[in-house]
Amino acid sequence: MGEVLVSLKGADVVSSKDFTRPMVERVFEVADEALRSPERFSGSLSGKRVALLFVEPSTRTYSSFHVAARKMGADVLPLVDPEMTSLTKGESLYDTLKMIEGYGVDCIVMRHPARGAARYAADVVRVPVINAGSGSQEHPTQSLLDAYTIRRKRGSIDGLRIGFLGDLRFSRTVPSLVYTLSLFKDVTMHFIAPPALQVRPEVELHLRKRGVSYDKVEKQSEIPRVVGELDVLYVTRLQKERFPDPSEYERLKGSYRVDMELLSNARPTLGVMHPLPRVDELDPEVDGTPHAWYFEQASYGLPVRMALYHLILGG
Amino acid sequence: MGEVLVSLKGADVVSSKDFTRPMVERVFEVADEALRSPERFSGSLSGKRVALLFVEPSTRTYSSFHVAARKMGADVLPLVDPEMTSLTKGESLYDTLKMIEGYGVDCIVMRHPARGAARYAADVVRVPVINAGSGSQEHPTQSLLDAYTIRRKRGSIDGLRIGFLGDLRFSRTVPSLVYTLSLFKDVTMHFIAPPALQVRPEVELHLRKRGVSYDKVEKQSEIPRVVGELDVLYVTRLQKERFPDPSEYERLKGSYRVDMELLSNARPTLGVMHPLPRVDELDPEVDGTPHAWYFEQASYGLPVRMALYHLILGG
Amino acid sequence: MGEVLVSLKGADVVSSKDFTRPMVERVFEVADEALRSPERFSGSLSGKRVALLFVEPSTRTYSSFHVAARKMGADVLPLVDPEMTSLTKGESLYDTLKMIEGYGVDCIVMRHPARGAARYAADVVRVPVINAGSGSQEHPTQSLLDAYTIRRKRGSIDGLRIGFLGDLRFSRTVPSLVYTLSLFKDVTMHFIAPPALQVRPEVELHLRKRGVSYDKVEKQSEIPRVVGELDVLYVTRLQKERFPDPSEYERLKGSYRVDMELLSNARPTLGVMHPLPRVDELDPEVDGTPHAWYFEQASYGLPVRMALYHLILGG
Repeated sequence: MGEVLVSLKGADVVSSKDFTRPMVERVFEVADEALRSPERFSGSLSGKRVALLFVEPSTRTYSSFHVAARKMGADVLPLVDPEMTSLTKGESLYDTLKMIEGYGVDCIVMRHPARGAARYAADVVRVPVINAGSGSQEHPTQSLLDAYTIRRKRGSIDGLRIGFLGDLRFSRTVPSLVYTLSLFKDVTMHFIAPPALQVRPEVELHLRKRGVSYDKVEKQSEIPRVVGELDVLYVTRLQKERFPDPSEYERLKGSYRVDMELLSNARPTLGVMHPLPRVDELDPEVDGTPHAWYFEQASYGLPVRMALYHLILGG
Repeated sequence: MGEVLVSLKGADVVSSKDFTRPMVERVFEVADEALRSPERFSGSLSGKRVALLFVEPSTRTYSSFHVAARKMGADVLPLVDPEMTSLTKGESLYDTLKMIEGYGVDCIVMRHPARGAARYAADVVRVPVINAGSGSQEHPTQSLLDAYTIRRKRGSIDGLRIGFLGDLRFSRTVPSLVYTLSLFKDVTMHFIAPPALQVRPEVELHLRKRGVSYDKVEKQSEIPRVVGELDVLYVTRLQKERFPDPSEYERLKGSYRVDMELLSNARPTLGVMHPLPRVDELDPEVDGTPHAWYFEQASYGLPVRMALYHLILGG
Repeated sequence: MGEVLVSLKGADVVSSKDFTRPMVERVFEVADEALRSPERFSGSLSGKRVALLFVEPSTRTYSSFHVAARKMGADVLPLVDPEMTSLTKGESLYDTLKMIEGYGVDCIVMRHPARGAARYAADVVRVPVINAGSGSQEHPTQSLLDAYTIRRKRGSIDGLRIGFLGDLRFSRTVPSLVYTLSLFKDVTMHFIAPPALQVRPEVELHLRKRGVSYDKVEKQSEIPRVVGELDVLYVTRLQKERFPDPSEYERLKGSYRVDMELLSNARPTLGVMHPLPRVDELDPEVDGTPHAWYFEQASYGLPVRMALYHLILGG
């Protein structure tokens, strides 16, 4: 790509739909540097203040944003206390955001159960807003660390064959990753899920508009063959409570569980990814194999969030 | 006032009843300085440790005390975890306070659902205690930022005509503000509420003792006229669950809602205040008018709490 | 002991059963120094990062580990939010620990409701793990501060006569203290509890293996006589819900309550200890007497935890 001239200074991170390829690659470059020379980022945001507004709890994402800020010397204002749940009902998000802005913070990282909440927040406040998960809609910073994982492990994202398996309808990580990967060349996507849990129409629409090649795999019997063709298998959980008929869940769950038997058909280089936490959709037996990318994937949350802070607040 | 010689060093802030006019004006002076030259306060409390004991949650007040302490370089010990709710039942407050004192903190900021809890705490521990809200009794630091707002917007508190509207009986902010304003000259107060939600007898007693002019407005039909005479309208929420008869609530709620229609009778300089969070007692339409003082009011929580920390713990 | 050559650098603190006498005495020496010259420890862990993973809430223990770390300049990653309770069900502890390790922390302090969780964590992660309470099994750092209290108040632990009173079966502090005290010479222990709440067999087994002299006092009528012979009475709460028959609880509770009447038989030097919080098993009347060691005991949580951090993470 040569020298990329991309500025994220002061930018909001609301949706992966807004990303551009140069922007994503700039995040990757800075994340590489954060892994290589973390000491360069130490104290680089000293004097800055980041509010972490988590109306919905999330240990993993919260911790990652918290540690990244502290490593760079920024102060963290944690807004995760129990009253928050009442906020989702009572107080308007507008008033909450205005209050936080009044504290003179430099950035608001927000997780919220409502669709559109992140976009609304970005419109309402003057400081940058980072979407740390909004409803079952999007999780754009997760998609950056997911894509970064693929780039690190595979060298490149272009030409990728990826399968998404499990509950794709209510997942917030899958749509965001789909949008981010659609910026790259010759990516093929397979959506492996029962019809009731297939990707949402908005996701398909986006792929058709961008001319990305994809298909939906809805028959259990086809799963092993498709998995055999993949570079990456991205797993999400199949939640029992999503099924109107519990017996339907019982019938299906075995086919949507990733274990050594399913992987016996896989290429040796296949990487299995998972946003974690997992419950039982991903057999711990897989942990010991080269297919297991998910712990390394989780560890990239830190450098990728450091890169975002750096590009948005730094310099 | 000329040079005011007032020291708050090591003082407790338990009740607005204990305030004096010179003390309140000293807080205002330091808050002015915190707004004008925040950098002077940066690191001024470094090495100090403030415990935030919030037995009852409060995002807004908690955040304000947290950020103020961190801006001045003090360390914060957050004591807001879920066990706290069990503390309100089980463990004695005495033991909890003794434990916190044992950690060598320099100040305890406490919110507690019980009346008298703050006074008790101030008696029990040696370090200064700041009451961040006790039961439905008092919220003295809120009253300081409320009074500070009036002083900033109007230039002076002397001669103020203020109306308090809504649930005045179970409000903790109204009594504290009444006590603080009663230190100033020629303040007239109108308590606009149905009889069941009028100010508590202790508040009236205090006003009579101090010779403050006030009346109670209990008829809905009189509200527009009274609002028309005010400099400030201080709004609190009318909570349905306070009414023995739900139909009574339905009948009244319209009259205790602040909207453009009610304000059509107001003076152009009328300021509407609200401790926030609001629910639906204050129409968002008002936000865009010069009457809306409440967001600016909320933003003064930070300099006023910085001023308190400075005067109590600093230099 | 002369010069003790003991290194705890990088060690896990999982169970008091693993302690040795030189190790415990080294902790005491450093705790002495932390009380005498706290300034020597200021900033000594700067740049270190401690994760506090509290799957089960505990204000007291949490605060103590938090303040100790901050006093020494270490950064704290608080992992106590509500989702944690769901972690106990859903996500595997393995995945949670791997995630935390991925954040580059230098130490994990963990409280967890499951037996064996701390040992498991120490096996799974590379950084030191400090058990801050596991199930109703152990609480080793509490035992260190308890033993430290006895050493400070009495001069020595050798020759101690100690009684444990209350619910000894479900207590996590009692077994840990028993193991720690069993490292010293000529310690005699009396377990004063109804049969259903007596010490667990594993504790008795340990004492027999170490040749420690102990007996079980199960008759209410014998309690006053036994208390009269003690140097230390360690009190824990008798919880109503542990009794299959509520009337049994009503019959017994008076005898397991420590008040001035019970202490009328005690030696003048008897020290009463309690891990706190107490409810009503320990009469506040005792607070004003020289028997009350429990607040001083609580205050030693800080220097003892500082000593542990110092020895495990420091210089």
